[in-house]
Amino acid sequence: MSDQFTPRPEHKFSFGLWTVGNRGRDPFGDVVRPTLAPTDAVALLAEVGAWGVNLHDNDLVPIDASSSDRDRIVKEFRSACNRHSIVVPMATVNLFYDPVFRDGAFTSNDAHVRAYAVQKTLRAMDVGVELGAKTFVLWGGREGTETDACRRPDEAVKRLREAVDYLCEYSIDRKYGFRFALEAKPNEPRGDIYMATTGNYLGFIATLAHPEMVGVNPEVAHEQMAGLNFVHAVAQAWEAGKLFHIDLNDQAPGRYDQDFRFGSANPKAAFFLVKFLEDVNYDGPRHFDAHAYRTEDYDGVRDFARGCMRTYLILKERAQRWNADSEIQGLLASAKSDSKLPPLPTLLNQQFDRTALAAKGLAYERLDQLTIEVLLGVR
Amino acid sequence: MSDQFTPRPEHKFSFGLWTVGNRGRDPFGDVVRPTLAPTDAVALLAEVGAWGVNLHDNDLVPIDASSSDRDRIVKEFRSACNRHSIVVPMATVNLFYDPVFRDGAFTSNDAHVRAYAVQKTLRAMDVGVELGAKTFVLWGGREGTETDACRRPDEAVKRLREAVDYLCEYSIDRKYGFRFALEAKPNEPRGDIYMATTGNYLGFIATLAHPEMVGVNPEVAHEQMAGLNFVHAVAQAWEAGKLFHIDLNDQAPGRYDQDFRFGSANPKAAFFLVKFLEDVNYDGPRHFDAHAYRTEDYDGVRDFARGCMRTYLILKERAQRWNADSEIQGLLASAKSDSKLPPLPTLLNQQFDRTALAAKGLAYERLDQLTIEVLLGVR
Amino acid sequence: MSDQFTPRPEHKFSFGLWTVGNRGRDPFGDVVRPTLAPTDAVALLAEVGAWGVNLHDNDLVPIDASSSDRDRIVKEFRSACNRHSIVVPMATVNLFYDPVFRDGAFTSNDAHVRAYAVQKTLRAMDVGVELGAKTFVLWGGREGTETDACRRPDEAVKRLREAVDYLCEYSIDRKYGFRFALEAKPNEPRGDIYMATTGNYLGFIATLAHPEMVGVNPEVAHEQMAGLNFVHAVAQAWEAGKLFHIDLNDQAPGRYDQDFRFGSANPKAAFFLVKFLEDVNYDGPRHFDAHAYRTEDYDGVRDFARGCMRTYLILKERAQRWNADSEIQGLLASAKSDSKLPPLPTLLNQQFDRTALAAKGLAYERLDQLTIEVLLGVR
Amino acid sequence: MSDQFTPRPEHKFSFGLWTVGNRGRDPFGDVVRPTLAPTDAVALLAEVGAWGVNLHDNDLVPIDASSSDRDRIVKEFRSACNRHSIVVPMATVNLFYDPVFRDGAFTSNDAHVRAYAVQKTLRAMDVGVELGAKTFVLWGGREGTETDACRRPDEAVKRLREAVDYLCEYSIDRKYGFRFALEAKPNEPRGDIYMATTGNYLGFIATLAHPEMVGVNPEVAHEQMAGLNFVHAVAQAWEAGKLFHIDLNDQAPGRYDQDFRFGSANPKAAFFLVKFLEDVNYDGPRHFDAHAYRTEDYDGVRDFARGCMRTYLILKERAQRWNADSEIQGLLASAKSDSKLPPLPTLLNQQFDRTALAAKGLAYERLDQLTIEVLLGVR
Repeated sequence: MSDQFTPRPEHKFSFGLWTVGNRGRDPFGDVVRPTLAPTDAVALLAEVGAWGVNLHDNDLVPIDASSSDRDRIVKEFRSACNRHSIVVPMATVNLFYDPVFRDGAFTSNDAHVRAYAVQKTLRAMDVGVELGAKTFVLWGGREGTETDACRRPDEAVKRLREAVDYLCEYSIDRKYGFRFALEAKPNEPRGDIYMATTGNYLGFIATLAHPEMVGVNPEVAHEQMAGLNFVHAVAQAWEAGKLFHIDLNDQAPGRYDQDFRFGSANPKAAFFLVKFLEDVNYDGPRHFDAHAYRTEDYDGVRDFARGCMRTYLILKERAQRWNADSEIQGLLASAKSDSKLPPLPTLLNQQFDRTALAAKGLAYERLDQLTIEVLLGVR
Repeated sequence: MSDQFTPRPEHKFSFGLWTVGNRGRDPFGDVVRPTLAPTDAVALLAEVGAWGVNLHDNDLVPIDASSSDRDRIVKEFRSACNRHSIVVPMATVNLFYDPVFRDGAFTSNDAHVRAYAVQKTLRAMDVGVELGAKTFVLWGGREGTETDACRRPDEAVKRLREAVDYLCEYSIDRKYGFRFALEAKPNEPRGDIYMATTGNYLGFIATLAHPEMVGVNPEVAHEQMAGLNFVHAVAQAWEAGKLFHIDLNDQAPGRYDQDFRFGSANPKAAFFLVKFLEDVNYDGPRHFDAHAYRTEDYDGVRDFARGCMRTYLILKERAQRWNADSEIQGLLASAKSDSKLPPLPTLLNQQFDRTALAAKGLAYERLDQLTIEVLLGVR
Repeated sequence: MSDQFTPRPEHKFSFGLWTVGNRGRDPFGDVVRPTLAPTDAVALLAEVGAWGVNLHDNDLVPIDASSSDRDRIVKEFRSACNRHSIVVPMATVNLFYDPVFRDGAFTSNDAHVRAYAVQKTLRAMDVGVELGAKTFVLWGGREGTETDACRRPDEAVKRLREAVDYLCEYSIDRKYGFRFALEAKPNEPRGDIYMATTGNYLGFIATLAHPEMVGVNPEVAHEQMAGLNFVHAVAQAWEAGKLFHIDLNDQAPGRYDQDFRFGSANPKAAFFLVKFLEDVNYDGPRHFDAHAYRTEDYDGVRDFARGCMRTYLILKERAQRWNADSEIQGLLASAKSDSKLPPLPTLLNQQFDRTALAAKGLAYERLDQLTIEVLLGVR
Repeated sequence: MSDQFTPRPEHKFSFGLWTVGNRGRDPFGDVVRPTLAPTDAVALLAEVGAWGVNLHDNDLVPIDASSSDRDRIVKEFRSACNRHSIVVPMATVNLFYDPVFRDGAFTSNDAHVRAYAVQKTLRAMDVGVELGAKTFVLWGGREGTETDACRRPDEAVKRLREAVDYLCEYSIDRKYGFRFALEAKPNEPRGDIYMATTGNYLGFIATLAHPEMVGVNPEVAHEQMAGLNFVHAVAQAWEAGKLFHIDLNDQAPGRYDQDFRFGSANPKAAFFLVKFLEDVNYDGPRHFDAHAYRTEDYDGVRDFARGCMRTYLILKERAQRWNADSEIQGLLASAKSDSKLPPLPTLLNQQFDRTALAAKGLAYERLDQLTIEVLLGVR
């Protein structure tokens, strides 16, 4: 059954192999779903209407694969993608699952681990290029500490910079043309993770050798875990020309990393996000980094994936309705005055009537109530 | 303009005097709205369609009022309520504003403060009775600490019990017939507040001299400040026969006490709450303990109050739609089996096929997606 | 090297098999330590100076063990405990690891799962009794939801009550003499868990068929995940005669379940906890439900276990020092007045000088600073 | 009584006028302490051993003061500072108390409010210069929203940039030589505040016209409100050459802005912070942006101020002890290897023994336990 909320390729909906392939393991429980082969994942994504698939190196190629196995696997996967008209817009590297990374990768205290992590990333970039990926995401999920006794935090920043600069050089050297997107997270699986928020990465990027090659990959859940307003972070990144990728999912604040279906935890927050992305004509992938509840089988995984895209499209339609609502636009117009600051001599002599400026009600309660009513479909 | 979401008396919507009368003072800023006289607040509430008004003693009667002033004020207020057909379902006592309560009231280390707090509460009960209130709420907003060095926390519990038992005796003695509703909060304005959650009060009530007279007044914001699922707390209270009152508003988790317009922070959480209250036929007041943004004048306060009620009614309609949705009801029916546990000999010998029990997908992703779609008005 | 902070049997320090046996698996990474056989865990605990060991049924007996394997395993374990002079004060049941429990155990929508969960618990009680356990802990780690669409929350409460009542009957029927200790947690691995706080369980217990048999097992991390003051919850449970067991560890608020070494995240909060337990002469086990960082091998696990006990004993000595500090005691004495509330006629006529009562500084800054200085060992 | 923990000028301890002058008003209660005149605050600070005092414009000069009053007040204050040998290292501007700023200052929707806010800041800079301040702090406490319907968040970023660039120009134009320090906060008094974390400001600075003039003023409480690791943020700022100022206090995560005495909420977190500042030879002011509990009179305010400084010095001594502890240094040395990444051709061909690299225990439990023992003064 197709309707206005049916996903189409131009919506650029992508999923990680690890999302529909998530087997439901958690800290207190074992896997609940059988392994989903990468090529089957591609078929599933095509079935539900996705446009792209993303992957960590080891989502596809086992960490110990021989060179010939690696080549065969990549080739078969590319072929499956072609067969199903699924693109691979983004690749990334798994620097967190193997025990070797238990104290971090690029920031590990062990120089061999750091070198291995960079080498592994270079090879993941190779795979990404073979599959056509244009964006390379770096999530330093274990770059952190349980105790700050183990290393000075400024040392970690220096190591991180050395690694990212190295990766940029490699991309330049090989003419890969990658744009790197750095993904922040405040904690979990480490007690604290360095570069806790998207903002920290925006600050870090300014200190790199090739800042123009590097942007951010904000994730809803990672920013909301810290109780932060996600759309504010996304807007800052966008305004700075640094929104290179985005990870959509949902999350209750102040909790473990939930990676819920997009829009399912707080549809109002999701609405403002979709509205922002559509208002500014963000044209990158809408990537869902989420997974199905552990109560589900693979039919439930399909429901989950369909739900992510469908809710995005419902919210997009709501955003259009909001933009077209004359009462809303009237309130906005009356609230807003756009002129620039006057030149210094003028400003210094200007007289302001503070009381008058403070007296006018701004009608934001009405504006927000109208937003709720547009969202809930009653206007 | 009246429609299906217009409040009517049978909806039992009430507001505190302190809610529409909130002047916008916050820790970093001064008042932004002029004083609203209690009788004017009643008129405003009637205008927007409310059914009831609640009050702290000092919302109405100044703390230093003479006996004759007090009598006159109460009489005029009752008359205003009658004139506007507004009832007073609940009364409470302010044990937090005056500096005398800076280290708590019932749990203060100073026996004189404790006695004064109880005396003040008895007099607030007198006022409540004169205005027809049936429920007396106790919010121990300053019963807490910034440092646990100042008192043993079990001592605080004992003092709290002594006070609540005393109040029950007074209600019995005067034949006031009050039901007391205890309101929890985890912190703010104290570093930590004793009886942090509704659950703590449910446990406390069981230790009182008159447990049957005492229930709880859960508040959305207070439970969500601690990141807790509010409807779970409400359901436990309801199931135990202890939901004597409820405070509706909204709040982002892990923050200062926001007291936002009902349903405005997270409409999905608000939906499950309204659905629960309506499903169990809760027949107490729907009390909004919230206030308008500081950006608003009194027109904005009206918008705020109307929005609280309107959103409640929209969500109530959505709950009915959810209950009538055959796909949703089908999923629920197939998920649920209601039989009781078998008797011991039977149970001990029963064989279970764990693998089979674990294999079936529960379709909760679909169920939740349908919930989102009902909520957003697309089915 | 033995000193005043060396653990001795009379300190009643216990660890779960699952704590020193934790292999370091987390949501983003694989195991990092080899399996530790239960009997080796007992030897390790004896080596570091512990007094007791606790266990889930499946920490010891595989879920699919034959009856004869089960008997042999239990016998060997008991023998290892005896050999090492380690007691088993508490037993519990694993109702969360196996996929059959993916939607809860006692509160599952599936009556067969509920029955299986109860049967499994009865058998775990049998094991506990054979090993000499007096306390049976119930942690309903999967009794919760990701979406409240799946079941009415009051239904969950009813199912939980049915199960706990059933277990009490079994203990009575078999003359096991167990005391049940219910352990709350707000979330993880479920989106929300029913009975989110110790307070919720205190309220629930009052509604049981055998409330006298049932108490609570508060855990530091579980209460602090929700940002709640742990010692307040413990004190309420103690004051109500319900502190049947306790789980010691540490945790930063608003995060995933960290289960850090006791006292390692916030030594001041740990100080007030130890002080409370020692001040009231709590004589139950001091159970550490924590595990070593994932960066550790089994030498690090020993460091972890030793650290838990050593920090407890340091804080206990600090608490004694605090109690003996004359300036601290002087400040407390001047802050506190203990008299009971006067009888009603007296109270109603009492005059209070609010201004005078509010004028006196309470010297809590000094009291807290002295606490910090005792804690840090500079007085 | 003077000892090794007595503050001296070279420690550069400063307090805001608003800190010792805080009167204890909070959202639920009135002021509890009388007004403290700015000159009396200076005397109090001198008495307790502080080195510097900081101020918002209106802490000293009333918002409506005439030009001559303003000049007299500034002169008298400077004279009091000289008399008491108290310096004014930092000045700032109050853009949050007056109702005119109820919807923000630099980011307000009203161009007149934006202009007034900038004008007010220029004048506050004038005052700062007259008093000798070298650093100008900007805390955009009301630059935020309760509903994101009211403005596009990228628009807010642009307005903020326009204002900060304007201020830089003024400082250049007047040869004031100010360094600006931007102070982040996630929420309160607004629902959400733009530039939620220190990281967001680091990213923003890179987009300014004069990035070299602008750094950050991280505040313990503001970062910890969001549950973030404060020392990580400070270290990133330091490493980028952007730690222009710092606000010391304490705070439990996930709560209202508590501004507690330094080191009082979590002494371990405070220890790592002090250790970092001392290890890197940070030579700016140690500014305490905190206030006494509401239970205190001005003797308690003195206790509070003394406690902030004393705890800092205790932790500084602990940091020295930690650095001198041979077991700690041995563990660190064995954990760490410092070599740079090899050149590309070498790296690509390097073989790594993942299993061996993952096998070695890192002894971080021991390292952290030793840290706790140094902190608690038992080694």
